Amino acid sequence: MIVVMRRDASEQDIQHMIKEVELANLKPTVLRGTERTVIAVIGDERRMASIGALESGPGVDEVLTVLAPYKVASRETKSEPTIVTAGTLTVGGGRLGIIAGPCGVESEEQIISAARAIKKSGATALRGGAFKPRTSPYSFQGMKEAGLRLLAKAREETGLPVVTEVVTSEDVPLVAEYADVLQVGARNMQNYRLLEAVGRVTRPVLLKRGPSATIDEFLLAAEYILDAGNQQVMLCERGIRTFETHTRFTLPLASVPYLQAKTHLPVVIDPSHGTGHTSLVPAMARAAIAAGADGIIVEVHPNPEKALSDGYQSLNFQQFEEMMAGCRRVAAAMEMQLA
Amino acid sequence: MIVVMRRDASEQDIQHMIKEVELANLKPTVLRGTERTVIAVIGDERRMASIGALESGPGVDEVLTVLAPYKVASRETKSEPTIVTAGTLTVGGGRLGIIAGPCGVESEEQIISAARAIKKSGATALRGGAFKPRTSPYSFQGMKEAGLRLLAKAREETGLPVVTEVVTSEDVPLVAEYADVLQVGARNMQNYRLLEAVGRVTRPVLLKRGPSATIDEFLLAAEYILDAGNQQVMLCERGIRTFETHTRFTLPLASVPYLQAKTHLPVVIDPSHGTGHTSLVPAMARAAIAAGADGIIVEVHPNPEKALSDGYQSLNFQQFEEMMAGCRRVAAAMEMQLA
Amino acid sequence: MIVVMRRDASEQDIQHMIKEVELANLKPTVLRGTERTVIAVIGDERRMASIGALESGPGVDEVLTVLAPYKVASRETKSEPTIVTAGTLTVGGGRLGIIAGPCGVESEEQIISAARAIKKSGATALRGGAFKPRTSPYSFQGMKEAGLRLLAKAREETGLPVVTEVVTSEDVPLVAEYADVLQVGARNMQNYRLLEAVGRVTRPVLLKRGPSATIDEFLLAAEYILDAGNQQVMLCERGIRTFETHTRFTLPLASVPYLQAKTHLPVVIDPSHGTGHTSLVPAMARAAIAAGADGIIVEVHPNPEKALSDGYQSLNFQQFEEMMAGCRRVAAAMEMQLA
Amino acid sequence: MIVVMRRDASEQDIQHMIKEVELANLKPTVLRGTERTVIAVIGDERRMASIGALESGPGVDEVLTVLAPYKVASRETKSEPTIVTAGTLTVGGGRLGIIAGPCGVESEEQIISAARAIKKSGATALRGGAFKPRTSPYSFQGMKEAGLRLLAKAREETGLPVVTEVVTSEDVPLVAEYADVLQVGARNMQNYRLLEAVGRVTRPVLLKRGPSATIDEFLLAAEYILDAGNQQVMLCERGIRTFETHTRFTLPLASVPYLQAKTHLPVVIDPSHGTGHTSLVPAMARAAIAAGADGIIVEVHPNPEKALSDGYQSLNFQQFEEMMAGCRRVAAAMEMQLA
Repeated sequence: MIVVMRRDASEQDIQHMIKEVELANLKPTVLRGTERTVIAVIGDERRMASIGALESGPGVDEVLTVLAPYKVASRETKSEPTIVTAGTLTVGGGRLGIIAGPCGVESEEQIISAARAIKKSGATALRGGAFKPRTSPYSFQGMKEAGLRLLAKAREETGLPVVTEVVTSEDVPLVAEYADVLQVGARNMQNYRLLEAVGRVTRPVLLKRGPSATIDEFLLAAEYILDAGNQQVMLCERGIRTFETHTRFTLPLASVPYLQAKTHLPVVIDPSHGTGHTSLVPAMARAAIAAGADGIIVEVHPNPEKALSDGYQSLNFQQFEEMMAGCRRVAAAMEMQLA
Repeated sequence: MIVVMRRDASEQDIQHMIKEVELANLKPTVLRGTERTVIAVIGDERRMASIGALESGPGVDEVLTVLAPYKVASRETKSEPTIVTAGTLTVGGGRLGIIAGPCGVESEEQIISAARAIKKSGATALRGGAFKPRTSPYSFQGMKEAGLRLLAKAREETGLPVVTEVVTSEDVPLVAEYADVLQVGARNMQNYRLLEAVGRVTRPVLLKRGPSATIDEFLLAAEYILDAGNQQVMLCERGIRTFETHTRFTLPLASVPYLQAKTHLPVVIDPSHGTGHTSLVPAMARAAIAAGADGIIVEVHPNPEKALSDGYQSLNFQQFEEMMAGCRRVAAAMEMQLA
Repeated sequence: MIVVMRRDASEQDIQHMIKEVELANLKPTVLRGTERTVIAVIGDERRMASIGALESGPGVDEVLTVLAPYKVASRETKSEPTIVTAGTLTVGGGRLGIIAGPCGVESEEQIISAARAIKKSGATALRGGAFKPRTSPYSFQGMKEAGLRLLAKAREETGLPVVTEVVTSEDVPLVAEYADVLQVGARNMQNYRLLEAVGRVTRPVLLKRGPSATIDEFLLAAEYILDAGNQQVMLCERGIRTFETHTRFTLPLASVPYLQAKTHLPVVIDPSHGTGHTSLVPAMARAAIAAGADGIIVEVHPNPEKALSDGYQSLNFQQFEEMMAGCRRVAAAMEMQLA
Repeated sequence: MIVVMRRDASEQDIQHMIKEVELANLKPTVLRGTERTVIAVIGDERRMASIGALESGPGVDEVLTVLAPYKVASRETKSEPTIVTAGTLTVGGGRLGIIAGPCGVESEEQIISAARAIKKSGATALRGGAFKPRTSPYSFQGMKEAGLRLLAKAREETGLPVVTEVVTSEDVPLVAEYADVLQVGARNMQNYRLLEAVGRVTRPVLLKRGPSATIDEFLLAAEYILDAGNQQVMLCERGIRTFETHTRFTLPLASVPYLQAKTHLPVVIDPSHGTGHTSLVPAMARAAIAAGADGIIVEVHPNPEKALSDGYQSLNFQQFEEMMAGCRRVAAAMEMQLA
């Protein structure tokens, strides 16, 4: 931690800040420059109750932090990559997971036909929402437990593991009963009760980045899950909110190499939400793989035009088949193994 | 709803889309221009299962919506302003609410002294968090029920109504037992289970805007609460995430006149989170009032430098007293009544 | 400057970086923590050719800068506020400038009637564009020199000083012949040749912030003008680009107190571009004054519906008159003198 | 164009708007719904002086536009892809251009060694700035004409065509004398005088997207060049400004497929500025190719740590050699020909 004093800070201000740091059992080093005095603090600054509060101290200009705020998720803590597995799905360590399926479960026919089609094209897991968090109270809210039962049936039919969202801590036991992977959606990335709850079960978790979350906030959300005991966490980049309006969100693929340098957790890309338009999904799926992603998650629907949610960004079976052909070529160039 | 067809759309594509609209019992009007064909749809487009899915239709370029997606929150539905009251707090209809207090309840002495100080300076409600959603699992997580009891005690001592956050649907009954106003925080703006739960109690709700929520998404979140039966909802603008880094968030005060034109719900501004720096809070509190806000909510702490959360953006008692002097002058200029 | 080494940096890496710093005649202090080594650099880091390049050094994680990159614009360099004057316009030091007029000069009748109306309502300077930078090559591009002559005529008629935009360094002599204040538009904030050119004339400059410029970049643009010899610079905040779409730009009024703490230059707010909607302009003009702005610049047109540019955000004469009534009340509350 | 009237619009308001549309020789169709009246306008709305101004009309809620504002750049105008060529550089139509070199020309040794190294690794053009637009007036501003001469010398030595920036319309003849491709930088994307000037020469232009420009604004900037007569225009996506701080800009690769659907102009990606960190460049270069980009432009320096600009995002020769190996594999998977 570096405390930068204001140019007009008094000696008393400087002594005050030194004392504050010592009270936290940290060791201050005072550097007196011609323009500013800076107090550098050696040791684990994360032990201070609230580093930021020091900015309210007399004569303080700003406080710069040196250490990343997350620990367990950090590659400095664990250097080898975490590999997440659930049935035929393997994500990380050179294995590329392909998760596909409709936004929401709508009927038995819909989910079974989707499961069969995506399996045939090479997907290794089935996605489908039974509990749907929807922006409007007047939109389709999901089939709930009936949807979970249909997902289980689709798994029986195809052998594909099921990835599905859980929206509140109370539902975790129910959803964990049916699902192979629990998804925490972007809107819930900072729902800490939910993070703690999925941290206490033995199902892998797919954690989606919130559309305005910084990378540090994203990794701290993962830290809640890891800290609660669950080490099988996948990070899913699904786009951030920016001034761009021609895409639904802006998909920052640089998150892939950046996250892989900072954390051992595998990184999955969602080109469906990341673009919001069917026509842009295949190019971004290929780009994700070329950027080094450990997996992709894509919305596929038997008839996107009739989908009860996310139709504008879903692929039909033919489009998914073609997308997979391109992805396979890029994955081969990257020496990634589809599995 | 306006369906814009692509320039190369075939007659078959156009007929297909006409049929889709008719299937939803809506009436299409086909406008054939020299460059494009456009299908305008008269009637309540919100009845269609998913308007957006039409973008996946053959030959469709884009779908423009005409109606706002919210209903009950709309000023078109109810033209007179909603006035929210809880004890000495009145927000809306020309009455300006001043909610102040620490970010989190830390001790009896802290919360009681804060309550007394803010009351003396003119606040009409006390804020203080007992359940704290924190970005890091290693940060202070709040005093929980013990904190609620201290808030109740501070109310006894000062007569100020208590505004406090509830972070999950399960806690709503407990928090409602102690609090006068339930706050839904920015991270939970799209936690729909929570919105439904606070919609079913008889306490007013302060709903904070998520940092990347659009205004439509914000009003739709309010719609969840209104739709569940609770009409006492205050909208709180607390800043959005932008590329600016010299402030913690960017506080878009134009939300005040914009929201007041679109909805009958009162608008409260949070200059503390909206700026993230103590020194910027008083100017933005005054600006909020001059923009026509119905209330402000401000963080005040006996000793910000020692605060367990949000110290860098909290005012001490003296700073709050000075801020209120400025606010009173601007409120008088605006003919707003502090209460 | 603080060079944070990676956890796995070798002793050789650390020695390498120490040598780099010494080569620049700066003094490194090495702080060896349990988790990281940090090299703090005392002295004027701005003397290094390129601080950022050090991030490419072996074993370096990141480089944090301590000093603001601007000098002449800094309040640390000159603590008393700069007051800009041009005829009846005074901006800064407790005097509030009101600049108003149409986006573009369209005809003699238009600009003369606008000048008379705004003067009657209390404006202290006339704005109007003769050279219009337009997003589309097919839009009205301004009346050019003929427009300048009409502005001069409006000044003769009303006594109001003229603020008008110059879009390229070649035009500076021509525009300076007619104008009292040269405006550098948002699109040209980083047109350094133009900044240098307006820095060499004796007309005050109104420098608009680019919609994606950081505050540091904004102040460095001002620094180009100051460094070239012109000290009469007004900073104009006109909104930044964010994900908000209900306003044309997002107007971050916290720029006012922030800039006033960092620089001695006066701060002018443009609520017309900052919101993009006529109906939102008056509230934001009042809010700007309550936030402490030194001036406002507002678009006013005899008939906004027929304006060749920016009609959607222009006030008509009646609307401007009403806006000024509100502004006067808030200015009085702020003890600002309109002039 | 669709004019949406307010719910409370009077019959007089509606008649007024109908007349306005007819005055512009356009044909209005009035659609009266139960909630709103909508006036749809058939014909080329771009002929109206200022569509947006209609929003100031009585009773108007908003104006939605249907046609894209650009014409010559549109794929609807010219469906076959434009191929840009300059010596060994070919961009578009299945040919992948690789432009590499230092941010700025610093010395003969630097630029010649860089040119040789990048050619050996497979680059097809040399980049290097002689006129450098720099954020700070105290930074290295480029070698100017001396730099242009060194670029010409590097071309003689290696046969690589030269891509270099021109920052003001006055310099276009000088730069065009030495350069094979004129670059318009991000800061100048809306410097319309410059766009017109490069539109009148016979050198291909690389137009960089401004960091806060929308795609429509970007294409309209290209339209200025095309409209002035120069059809050899490459669009360069180099990242937008968002709330992300771990990268210098956010690189939205979805721009590639989106632009390719909307325009016939080739699309080049700049992963150096797009990320701002050497370590992230290779992954994003590969991803750009997998997304379908027609070219990439990358910063390469003999010794990035000593670079006078952009060192933190430059590759050294070894890193560029390795990047190219990866790019070649992905390009082969995409059936793109490096040339």
